[in-house]
Amino acid sequence: MTTIATVSTARLWAVVPAGGAGTRLWPLSRRDRPKFLLDLTGAGRSLLQQTTDRLRPLTGDRMIVVTGLAHRAAVAAQLPELPASRILAEPSPRDSMAAIGLAAAVLEALDPEAVLGSFAADHVIADSEAFRLAIRAAVPAAEAGWLVTIGLRPTSPATGFGYIRPGAELAEHEGVRAAAEFVEKPGPEVAQEYVSAGYRWNAGMFVGRPGVILDLLADSDPEFAANLRDIAAQLPDRPEVLDERWPTLPRIAFDHAIAEPAATAGRVAVVEADLGWDDIGDFASLEQVARSLRKEESPVVVVGEAGHVVSRDSSGLVVAGTGRTVAIVGLDDIVVVDTPDAVLVTSRSRAQDVKALVEEFRAQGREDLT
Amino acid sequence: MTTIATVSTARLWAVVPAGGAGTRLWPLSRRDRPKFLLDLTGAGRSLLQQTTDRLRPLTGDRMIVVTGLAHRAAVAAQLPELPASRILAEPSPRDSMAAIGLAAAVLEALDPEAVLGSFAADHVIADSEAFRLAIRAAVPAAEAGWLVTIGLRPTSPATGFGYIRPGAELAEHEGVRAAAEFVEKPGPEVAQEYVSAGYRWNAGMFVGRPGVILDLLADSDPEFAANLRDIAAQLPDRPEVLDERWPTLPRIAFDHAIAEPAATAGRVAVVEADLGWDDIGDFASLEQVARSLRKEESPVVVVGEAGHVVSRDSSGLVVAGTGRTVAIVGLDDIVVVDTPDAVLVTSRSRAQDVKALVEEFRAQGREDLT
Repeated sequence: MTTIATVSTARLWAVVPAGGAGTRLWPLSRRDRPKFLLDLTGAGRSLLQQTTDRLRPLTGDRMIVVTGLAHRAAVAAQLPELPASRILAEPSPRDSMAAIGLAAAVLEALDPEAVLGSFAADHVIADSEAFRLAIRAAVPAAEAGWLVTIGLRPTSPATGFGYIRPGAELAEHEGVRAAAEFVEKPGPEVAQEYVSAGYRWNAGMFVGRPGVILDLLADSDPEFAANLRDIAAQLPDRPEVLDERWPTLPRIAFDHAIAEPAATAGRVAVVEADLGWDDIGDFASLEQVARSLRKEESPVVVVGEAGHVVSRDSSGLVVAGTGRTVAIVGLDDIVVVDTPDAVLVTSRSRAQDVKALVEEFRAQGREDLT
Repeated sequence: MTTIATVSTARLWAVVPAGGAGTRLWPLSRRDRPKFLLDLTGAGRSLLQQTTDRLRPLTGDRMIVVTGLAHRAAVAAQLPELPASRILAEPSPRDSMAAIGLAAAVLEALDPEAVLGSFAADHVIADSEAFRLAIRAAVPAAEAGWLVTIGLRPTSPATGFGYIRPGAELAEHEGVRAAAEFVEKPGPEVAQEYVSAGYRWNAGMFVGRPGVILDLLADSDPEFAANLRDIAAQLPDRPEVLDERWPTLPRIAFDHAIAEPAATAGRVAVVEADLGWDDIGDFASLEQVARSLRKEESPVVVVGEAGHVVSRDSSGLVVAGTGRTVAIVGLDDIVVVDTPDAVLVTSRSRAQDVKALVEEFRAQGREDLT
């Protein structure tokens, strides 16, 4: 019997959707400097770079990054080892089904035996080894035709994520269970029930054969799947095909288009994992990640230049990145984010509302601020 | 009878002590950019310039600014109309008695009939006309030998100022009363009693003949008074006399050295006034002044570039002076001060503690921050 550690990943390709503005992280994240391009953990590597670093032991150079046209140059600059043909640039954002579906179609044409693993470019994973073990566990089931999702052990009854209800273990794949159901973001009470019942967080990570993914899509939207395969057939010789056809593709999330109906149809499996995962959805989340990565015990945690931050009788998060001194006196759960052209001051409990601020800027035509 | 409005101020000289770091206003005020050099009210003029603007209708060019050697050039640059000889530069800070005493001695030598009015360079006075009327009321009593102080009508039972207990009206000087007593900064309960009993704030403004001032000093410290007169006799021909003798002068406040004992001796008078006065002692005070000057009713008041400040569900003060955007979300009574090399975040109630922060910088040898 093949143990997980010896599973071959020679056919595994990583697809890395690099999208999402991260508006809750304004003014750190901007239109032209989205979250995935930022080094939010002080690792000296951006979240995108950390994502590819984490995957490289499994896939080597077998990676495709799907990003917006506006960010293609920045992605290429951050990943100089990645051939230009491995960066797929979406002419406009059309949600995750189009992005992942395009990569699947390109990959299906490139290598019919490929296995595709999709992992967002802007997540933090503290335990890379556990991540790779989970992927190794997923690969054989994916090769056997399952769409395998990674179900994260919840660390709190979070209401910001969807959940996966695990079913029975698969007879042929040790450590892999059927995914009985995908459920939407719950309210606080339901989230507590989910956690007690052993549900897992859905972080949008999954492994599957490109043909399986596209066939699952074809079950619900045959034209969408055919369009993606047709675009891929014309690439890379006719790059203009993307501009022509992209705007006609439906805007739908991968989970809605495929994962949820496929789970109901008994086609989805789940590998359970405990990865120290976080999507750094806002500054409250960033504070938590920074504390946990650095075992930080001081009441004010600093992302960036700790030597430039002084505080008295205060607690919270300071993001310091301009060489300026940031001083805080007598404030609890404060969030201060200092950037060259904007400074944000808010509290941990209001961190979510930063999104509304950025939406207000847009409504006012203050695109210069976004 | 001479009415106040027709009192001649032809012999009145203004002495403007321009000292004090204003550490509670860090990072706005710095060692090399003290409070009096700053435009804190958005008037387009520094507090020093506003002080001389306010005095000019009374004294014309008859002004002497006493400041630290380190600030002489900045004072001269802000007051280009003032002859260089009218800026007395203290070689080192030796408290207010030495500063005002030196100006008195210089003035006594210059014009034995002069009347000296001393007014700090870093106070805000909303009602300049009321201020000038109060000074006009003080001048005849000063010429008659009284040390006349301005007693401000309290707007709150403040614990940060000393108080003056007014006595009986002087028979010869309508609107001028004897000053029965100077009392130190009180506790909250005593302050409330003072306000109820009609005490006035002592803001350190007074009018008196130079000879009277120096003779009052000689009553308690004849050597100090003799030293000041001796220094003045050698100026401006031997400027080095200041360096030689200044370090030997006692460090004592004018109130302790003269005003308090003179009041006990029945030599002090008080003109009561309501000037819209504030010493902008900290950012809570600056917020109040800014609100009152602008009739500002929005929950967040801005000193500086209001167009660069955005806020949601917040109240407090923002000092914006770098062209950067300052955004505040969900914080009440917040104070944010944005300067080119440092940003301070605190609350109205902790505004006093900014001083401790600056003292900490000094203790750590971080003079670059002060």
